[in-house]
Amino acid sequence: MSYRLYYWPMLQGRGELVRLALEEAAETYVDVARLPEAEGGGVAALLAMLRGDASPPSYAPPILVAGDQVLSQTAVILTYLGDAHGLAPADRRLATLQLQLTISDAISEAHDTHHPIGTGLYYEDQREAAKQRAAFFVSQRIAKYLGYFERVLAQSGDHLVGAFSYADLSLFQLVAGLRHAFPKAMAAHAPASVIAHHDRVAARPRIAAYLASDRRIPFNEHGIFRAYAELDLA
Amino acid sequence: MSYRLYYWPMLQGRGELVRLALEEAAETYVDVARLPEAEGGGVAALLAMLRGDASPPSYAPPILVAGDQVLSQTAVILTYLGDAHGLAPADRRLATLQLQLTISDAISEAHDTHHPIGTGLYYEDQREAAKQRAAFFVSQRIAKYLGYFERVLAQSGDHLVGAFSYADLSLFQLVAGLRHAFPKAMAAHAPASVIAHHDRVAARPRIAAYLASDRRIPFNEHGIFRAYAELDLA
Repeated sequence: MSYRLYYWPMLQGRGELVRLALEEAAETYVDVARLPEAEGGGVAALLAMLRGDASPPSYAPPILVAGDQVLSQTAVILTYLGDAHGLAPADRRLATLQLQLTISDAISEAHDTHHPIGTGLYYEDQREAAKQRAAFFVSQRIAKYLGYFERVLAQSGDHLVGAFSYADLSLFQLVAGLRHAFPKAMAAHAPASVIAHHDRVAARPRIAAYLASDRRIPFNEHGIFRAYAELDLA
Repeated sequence: MSYRLYYWPMLQGRGELVRLALEEAAETYVDVARLPEAEGGGVAALLAMLRGDASPPSYAPPILVAGDQVLSQTAVILTYLGDAHGLAPADRRLATLQLQLTISDAISEAHDTHHPIGTGLYYEDQREAAKQRAAFFVSQRIAKYLGYFERVLAQSGDHLVGAFSYADLSLFQLVAGLRHAFPKAMAAHAPASVIAHHDRVAARPRIAAYLASDRRIPFNEHGIFRAYAELDLA
């Protein structure tokens, strides 16, 4: 299977969870919007997909085209890839999805620290609310989410559902992103077992190769996890 | 199968999507936290489940106990019930989940209109940010989400994925909730086909019976959809 991924070309975002799964599966894929427009890429290609006649239509990226299937919603794409490439134990499919959705919730809350009023408005126009939301997120939510994953790992061992799954890749991304955005808060609140889990995933050969490649877009201030020092209120 | 649902007893919330699916499936279930504490119910029963040793543990309610399985995350529970009770066409399982997750995203955004800073803080302490977020939600997001579902229905007919599914129940709940919370905005922005879909679901015999029963908790100001007139900025 050769996949076509449609996602914003200048940022990691939710598309990064799909990229990590494709890299771990060692599957060939085209990150379409990162191609030049002259080669059918660019944001124009992504917008054309969003306007297309997929069944059902896609509400938002990431979108994965797999043969004649057009999949969207990150957790749906990961469910598909998990089944197709052994990235979720067959007897733990719902458990893997459950953990994925909790990771997705944490990622959404991390995003909203810098966009508490509206995704379509500039950060600078919601900075005061952002400081308030970030203060709550840092003081309450990081510890609650990561404490939960600490509890999961204490029960399951090296991997979230016992054996390796796409949820491990997603937790890696959440932790990497939180450390980028909230380094002081993470130094204060991140459980050691969750950091050790992050390091194990980062050391997986295909993931390590990916992270060292130019396919990995660096964290930046267009994405979900942004290093705004004024929001890192350890 | 006799199910046990654990959810906050005083509000619809995300648990309502599970209640609707169980009602449509005509399955016997105990809404545990709505029982008196003396009968093993109350919030105490819910908190005990959250602290329990499910594998994986539950991060938050709703939680559904099905035999020896403990399921959480609303979309996971609905995936399970969809498979078990014919609430998702077998060849449209991923499409149904995709639509469900977009409905879930819309529900989360509706919630955050009154809690833009933090779920653990009082509404009164985030009222100014709430007015800003609600203005953005009402002017941009309602039309974008419901316009999307209008497009889906234009393609698929009476039901979101062609045949009836749990996603239809969830869209009904989203629309009912938005009409409760934002009556002026919904009168201005809700597409006719989405309202007609809501009415078809409400007229399904088991759903109509449920809505008329005391098992349906009324909308109130503890839940996701709250009728705060100052946020309904049509």
